[in-house]
Amino acid sequence: MKIGIDVMGGDYAPEAVVLGAILAYDQLQSDTELVLIGNEKNIKEISKKHGFEVSNFRIVHTDVLIEMGEHPAKAYAQKTNSSINLGYKMLRDNQIDGFASAGNTGAMLVGAMYTAKSIPGVIRPSIAATIPNLSDVPVILLDVGINPDAKPDVLYQYAILGSLYAFHVFGVENPKVGLLNIGSEEEKGNLLTKATYQAMKGTAEFNFIGNVEGNDIFDSDKVNVIVTDGFVGNVMLKEAEAFYSLLKKKNVGNSFFEKFNFENYGGTPILGINYPAVIGHGISNEKAIKNMILHTIEVVNVKLVDRIKEAFK
Amino acid sequence: MKIGIDVMGGDYAPEAVVLGAILAYDQLQSDTELVLIGNEKNIKEISKKHGFEVSNFRIVHTDVLIEMGEHPAKAYAQKTNSSINLGYKMLRDNQIDGFASAGNTGAMLVGAMYTAKSIPGVIRPSIAATIPNLSDVPVILLDVGINPDAKPDVLYQYAILGSLYAFHVFGVENPKVGLLNIGSEEEKGNLLTKATYQAMKGTAEFNFIGNVEGNDIFDSDKVNVIVTDGFVGNVMLKEAEAFYSLLKKKNVGNSFFEKFNFENYGGTPILGINYPAVIGHGISNEKAIKNMILHTIEVVNVKLVDRIKEAFK
Repeated sequence: MKIGIDVMGGDYAPEAVVLGAILAYDQLQSDTELVLIGNEKNIKEISKKHGFEVSNFRIVHTDVLIEMGEHPAKAYAQKTNSSINLGYKMLRDNQIDGFASAGNTGAMLVGAMYTAKSIPGVIRPSIAATIPNLSDVPVILLDVGINPDAKPDVLYQYAILGSLYAFHVFGVENPKVGLLNIGSEEEKGNLLTKATYQAMKGTAEFNFIGNVEGNDIFDSDKVNVIVTDGFVGNVMLKEAEAFYSLLKKKNVGNSFFEKFNFENYGGTPILGINYPAVIGHGISNEKAIKNMILHTIEVVNVKLVDRIKEAFK
Repeated sequence: MKIGIDVMGGDYAPEAVVLGAILAYDQLQSDTELVLIGNEKNIKEISKKHGFEVSNFRIVHTDVLIEMGEHPAKAYAQKTNSSINLGYKMLRDNQIDGFASAGNTGAMLVGAMYTAKSIPGVIRPSIAATIPNLSDVPVILLDVGINPDAKPDVLYQYAILGSLYAFHVFGVENPKVGLLNIGSEEEKGNLLTKATYQAMKGTAEFNFIGNVEGNDIFDSDKVNVIVTDGFVGNVMLKEAEAFYSLLKKKNVGNSFFEKFNFENYGGTPILGINYPAVIGHGISNEKAIKNMILHTIEVVNVKLVDRIKEAFK
């Protein structure tokens, strides 16, 4: 298995990315190779500085970077040799089996749509967040940012995508899918959720448990997959991040709440495209990068993309 | 000043409501009278049990209750002698100056629309939540549940309503108004927020600071009034409640985070109707009821309704 890593993407790149790759290397199966996409000189220097034998990596050199603040579509179209462009091309040409980047999220999504492309039958791909809770299994929240104006048929598909992710990657049997709403009763909600409820009700394609509310987000006993549009999901995820930072500011030291340190998070696959691509948080430190790489390997290992293709056949 | 209180509404009514009124009584100006609307016998018994001289209250007897689970519009139409109906009628007939209830929220909203009625010029009234943060002044989040499908002109008016509430009740000078969105740039968002941004941009009617995001909700240095539709506001408020309950479950004892104990909250006025009506949380304990009564008095004192009427003239 070959995993491509964007060494140029992320607030602390390239240092944190190379270090994260070094940390991940120790946990690899012997058949797994890490392909570092970025400035060869930097990669060699950082590896040497940390006493790591750089020939353990494969390097694909580029010094073209899509900056964090650049316009995603424009940059992706123009910078055809950027680390993100190269990663997607290698994915498409089967030179790598998975690709991970903590760089410009918009550009990663553009590459997902233009180079990796949606799986036939999937109306709109999605990115999911994993929300910590009292159990060891995260609650999957999706969408968290691709589709701020989703339609009922798109939310319906998110339920399928989220269920497959929860089952294959997190081992949740028959995941309970809840529709995020502002009341538990069927007739509650806005136009979108009322229509979506009717579409989901009685489905045999996933385990629909009905409406859930904002306060159910940390309750994996009740719900495993929470479906909402990309506007609401994004707001909820950022509110959870804000809570963690409030805890830090008030010096609440509690190991449980360290689960909410999204800086350590390993990223999330773009669900519904033809290849495994994983997006990391821009502020990823080396631990987060390591986790992003291991998560990518897991997504490839369980053949999540193939499972999704089968479901949408 | 006369403040009407629904003694029958709330999960712990009538006991907690009468107790809350007794607690509030100690803090009243001599010209303020509390008008308890509910079962006279209950009110007398609870007062006696707690050694309180019941003649300090005025009592308006009824034993008709709109239950928490009842259909709001139907119940309000049929139970014309319910405590909520009586409260609104007394408001409309100027027998009381403000009315507060922790009962069926839907019925309180129905009464707001049918009996108190919208202020001319206000498209849709709103309820706001006060969100705790590192400062002593809450962030005002609105709408939190009346209008799950708001339009740009409605959100525009929320900015005015929220600003007046923040200024007159919480003393925030020239409150900073943010549009809740999924990015800080003007072109970010869903169809609703993109259109609303254009409507708010350059306005002289309030202090528009642009887009804010989910992680700004606890940052009163940045924003004082966060405007969103009733779907997103409701979800955000409930997520904050869920966080507090997670802290309790993990036994995090930190006095700062007690600010997030929404059980102690004093309720919120319905902004944009012709009379001061305050909605309390169903789970209100006696402290919350006391705070709800004092908040109602404050709303009456600062003539919030008159200020809103002037703004929409």
